[in-house]
Amino acid sequence: MKKYNNGEFRIKDIGKTYTVQGWVNKRRDMGGVIFVDLRDRSGFLQVVFNRGFLKTEFELAESLRNEFCIEVTGELIKREEDMINPKIPTGEVELMVHDLKILGEADPVPFNIYEDKEINETVALKYRYLDLRREYAQEKIILRSKITTAVREFLNRQDFLEIETPILCKSTPEGARDYIVPSRVTPGSFYALPQSPQIFKQLLMISGFEKYYQIAKCFRDEDLRADRQPEFTQIDLEMSFASSEDVMNLVEEMIKHVVKSTKNIELEKFPKMTWKDAMNKYGSDKPDTRFEMYLNDLTDILRDTQMNVFRNAIEKGGIAKCLIVKNNGDKYSRSDVDHMIDFVKIYGAKGMAWLKFDNDQFNGVIAKNLEDEKLEEMKNRFGISNNDLVLIVVDKPSVVYASLGALRLKIAEELGLIDKSKLNFLWVVDFPMFEYSEKEHRYKAMHHPFTMPKNIEELDQPEKALSDAYDIVLNGYELGGGSVRIHNPKMQRQVFEALGLSDEEIKNKFAFFIEAFKYGAPPHAGLAIGLERFTMLLGGTDNIKDVIAFPKTQSASDLMSEAPNRVSQEQLDELKIRLEESDE
Amino acid sequence: MKKYNNGEFRIKDIGKTYTVQGWVNKRRDMGGVIFVDLRDRSGFLQVVFNRGFLKTEFELAESLRNEFCIEVTGELIKREEDMINPKIPTGEVELMVHDLKILGEADPVPFNIYEDKEINETVALKYRYLDLRREYAQEKIILRSKITTAVREFLNRQDFLEIETPILCKSTPEGARDYIVPSRVTPGSFYALPQSPQIFKQLLMISGFEKYYQIAKCFRDEDLRADRQPEFTQIDLEMSFASSEDVMNLVEEMIKHVVKSTKNIELEKFPKMTWKDAMNKYGSDKPDTRFEMYLNDLTDILRDTQMNVFRNAIEKGGIAKCLIVKNNGDKYSRSDVDHMIDFVKIYGAKGMAWLKFDNDQFNGVIAKNLEDEKLEEMKNRFGISNNDLVLIVVDKPSVVYASLGALRLKIAEELGLIDKSKLNFLWVVDFPMFEYSEKEHRYKAMHHPFTMPKNIEELDQPEKALSDAYDIVLNGYELGGGSVRIHNPKMQRQVFEALGLSDEEIKNKFAFFIEAFKYGAPPHAGLAIGLERFTMLLGGTDNIKDVIAFPKTQSASDLMSEAPNRVSQEQLDELKIRLEESDE
Repeated sequence: MKKYNNGEFRIKDIGKTYTVQGWVNKRRDMGGVIFVDLRDRSGFLQVVFNRGFLKTEFELAESLRNEFCIEVTGELIKREEDMINPKIPTGEVELMVHDLKILGEADPVPFNIYEDKEINETVALKYRYLDLRREYAQEKIILRSKITTAVREFLNRQDFLEIETPILCKSTPEGARDYIVPSRVTPGSFYALPQSPQIFKQLLMISGFEKYYQIAKCFRDEDLRADRQPEFTQIDLEMSFASSEDVMNLVEEMIKHVVKSTKNIELEKFPKMTWKDAMNKYGSDKPDTRFEMYLNDLTDILRDTQMNVFRNAIEKGGIAKCLIVKNNGDKYSRSDVDHMIDFVKIYGAKGMAWLKFDNDQFNGVIAKNLEDEKLEEMKNRFGISNNDLVLIVVDKPSVVYASLGALRLKIAEELGLIDKSKLNFLWVVDFPMFEYSEKEHRYKAMHHPFTMPKNIEELDQPEKALSDAYDIVLNGYELGGGSVRIHNPKMQRQVFEALGLSDEEIKNKFAFFIEAFKYGAPPHAGLAIGLERFTMLLGGTDNIKDVIAFPKTQSASDLMSEAPNRVSQEQLDELKIRLEESDE
Repeated sequence: MKKYNNGEFRIKDIGKTYTVQGWVNKRRDMGGVIFVDLRDRSGFLQVVFNRGFLKTEFELAESLRNEFCIEVTGELIKREEDMINPKIPTGEVELMVHDLKILGEADPVPFNIYEDKEINETVALKYRYLDLRREYAQEKIILRSKITTAVREFLNRQDFLEIETPILCKSTPEGARDYIVPSRVTPGSFYALPQSPQIFKQLLMISGFEKYYQIAKCFRDEDLRADRQPEFTQIDLEMSFASSEDVMNLVEEMIKHVVKSTKNIELEKFPKMTWKDAMNKYGSDKPDTRFEMYLNDLTDILRDTQMNVFRNAIEKGGIAKCLIVKNNGDKYSRSDVDHMIDFVKIYGAKGMAWLKFDNDQFNGVIAKNLEDEKLEEMKNRFGISNNDLVLIVVDKPSVVYASLGALRLKIAEELGLIDKSKLNFLWVVDFPMFEYSEKEHRYKAMHHPFTMPKNIEELDQPEKALSDAYDIVLNGYELGGGSVRIHNPKMQRQVFEALGLSDEEIKNKFAFFIEAFKYGAPPHAGLAIGLERFTMLLGGTDNIKDVIAFPKTQSASDLMSEAPNRVSQEQLDELKIRLEESDE
């Protein structure tokens, strides 16, 4: 039997009899006449129960409550002129019902489905199946489905093959924690759920599949932040015989196709920026380029100032950068600036100096201490004018970037500088190969250990070495990233060694992988995009739970089904594992 | 840079210079000239290294061995007439190389990639990335990708939404064993990997998504048979406001689209058969209809025979069925028939009687004991003629079906009665709601406990009750199955009770699910198809490992990466689990 889309009835359809189904969104009783907004995935149709016209008992219509699932048969008619509702697409028509069938009764629902107010998250998650009846919730899931459909359309057309890689994998913890799965057949051994299909997709290149993709489930047992989930999905692809340019071009076209298909927006060519420029200009490797307010360098100006605090910091290898808040100085009181100083301290800054420029002169504590010619030089170089606020951090580079980068975003948000309708994509390239971990006292791979160095000779100087890696950034979020991979077993071993992996570790974790490169490995490169992040940004939400059909809480539990839960002793016995007593 | 498909060069492309990449499939040395078959995903191209023409050192070309990955640049030319190879699509052309670059060297490979011989499975699995270079292996993975692409094309066009459901779920063991995942955040609790997305897809119907599908990963920790894997994929779909007819029609169209897209075969309308007819006629609920040889009933004939063994068995509720092996009696010796008798014993038959018909008379032990008029009646009813072999089992119905159903397939295979080019799809409908478990002394759901009974009154007589379930069968394999689901919480509870689930069990496992049905649940129905099985049958293989990129062995291990493996004590400590000592 045909299921009609309730939201698609129009004037051209009147005069015929239809049987339609849906949910009672709202019932209005007018004595002998009852109006119901009948909702389905496609929208609403007003259906009318008229005591005289209805063949079923009118009492049945009177028993309808919100969220009853019903089926009605009737004639589609044009509404009376004064009943036309121009706000909804079906506002000119209504169904005059002669038959009513209740398909599913509904108890009173724990929240009102259609009033688009904020719902308590705990309640929403427990009743996620009702939460998902809300247009707001449903449209996010539909958008996600449309995004993956557009991705597949595009990649299939480019002769990519979707190939599934295993979920029950080998545990090779590096970075994040693995979820592990005890093996019953081999007691004492465990599978791990994959953090990404990285190794498998590289093996598929060695197999000669040339163009692989997968909308791949990935897992990380991390302490969850608001935008993380224990399981997530990535648009994962890999190409043989491809350069970083090839991958970036392809992915750019793919993203354009997705944005065109889902939002009907034509994107311009994505700009490219080196990691170094991004850090210098935005204090971030994922700059939000929707507004202009840059980190300006004044290291050279302050290098020889008499102000010890600046001079000493620079002598110790620090840099000096400032943000200029143009023409908004009056918006920030002294105490507002104090709050900003507290804010940058979160990012490790020891302090922040500030200047206001008003009535053609600088004000603020350091205006008195800083040499006039330095102030003048700043004024000229940065074009400082009346009602500007200057915020200066002098510290080691990583702290300057992190603190002013974050402050830049905070101020832009406060002053409404960001055009939220923009989709600013950006490629960031030429990443450092390594980053130093203060905690572990060693260099770690900035992307991952399979990333190709730009210049193999530089591996000796890990602080200088660049990688052939690229990130795709959207509106200040890292949407995804990738790299050209190492395909030479000797080079792979060199990189592992530069990362301080022992022979033992290399052997245990990656022996088979290095072995695979010995049999004619092709050059290859790839990329992965976070599907949830992409859907969030296109869907206009900053809550990752909105874009997952059945999300988990920050403590990684499903409030609806109550997972995780206890399992039976028999299950544990079969796996030969025991729980530690909780009082141990 | 453009990657050409080596297998697609033709005469029309000659006279130009190309840079192509691929693997050395074979090298032939002819003194000053070396021929290499350069392989990629698309096929082969002959590339020629002529000492005079090559700009690179000729020694480099001489160093090429099988499976080297190389890049060559040269002019595409027409082959000399006597060098044309009509067996390969590029057989008229060759690339006269002037530049050679070795992209990846290759150690000697553990098996010859292109000779299509049987490879030791252990070696193939350990070097799966090389095994996947074989055309035989690669084409299965490509077919799988094409099948899922065709499925998605079809379902997207029908307004289905692909929605991902969780992998970290709640453990509700029913039937097969769950894989479980210890929770670090809630020590002592576990997630389970889903055996199917059944509950989630039904919740999505309650949410109003109306048409859902997913190419879904599923997991079962079972003792593996040859055609099972711990993780597998199903084409999973669900529709609201749909009857079993609606689902069957849709799925039939989907399968036709897939078979047309992947094999270019137009299928006829699929026949339908009730479960009862399938059992009676084929002894199987997944009959192979590619050949005619039915189970013939002779219960009425043998009910009053003087032969006690038959009469007694029928009196105790048994039935009598026979297979007639037409015109092939001479193929089976006395000892062959003895082997058949051993074979049916595997299926619980206590014995099997047989008759041969030759020179217009019956031969065999029972020909002497069975009354003449009975023999005559059999002869007439079943059209027995010379050189026929009659195989009779009299036992309880389940044993008769299982033994003769299996024997039917064995004989057809032996006699080559099966047209392997056929794709015989079949719907089997009207399944029993319950089946009695001798082991557990209780009725169990034949499909699953969410299946709608055909007639709710019949629930009192579980042996009679039919369900609104349907299986799709292909060439004797159950490709998939589905049902109309219960959408009424009272009925769901009744079925759980008929299955002997206690209130406690219902509450622990399904409380939230039954709760969900209280809020206007729509009628809904769905189906799941095993993707591996489907790919195997379309790909002409009976080894499930062939259709999985990285399969596991029968002991559920990955010989390539060596998963499962030991994990660190730190990992176990964080999860607060301990291993039982192996000597316990």
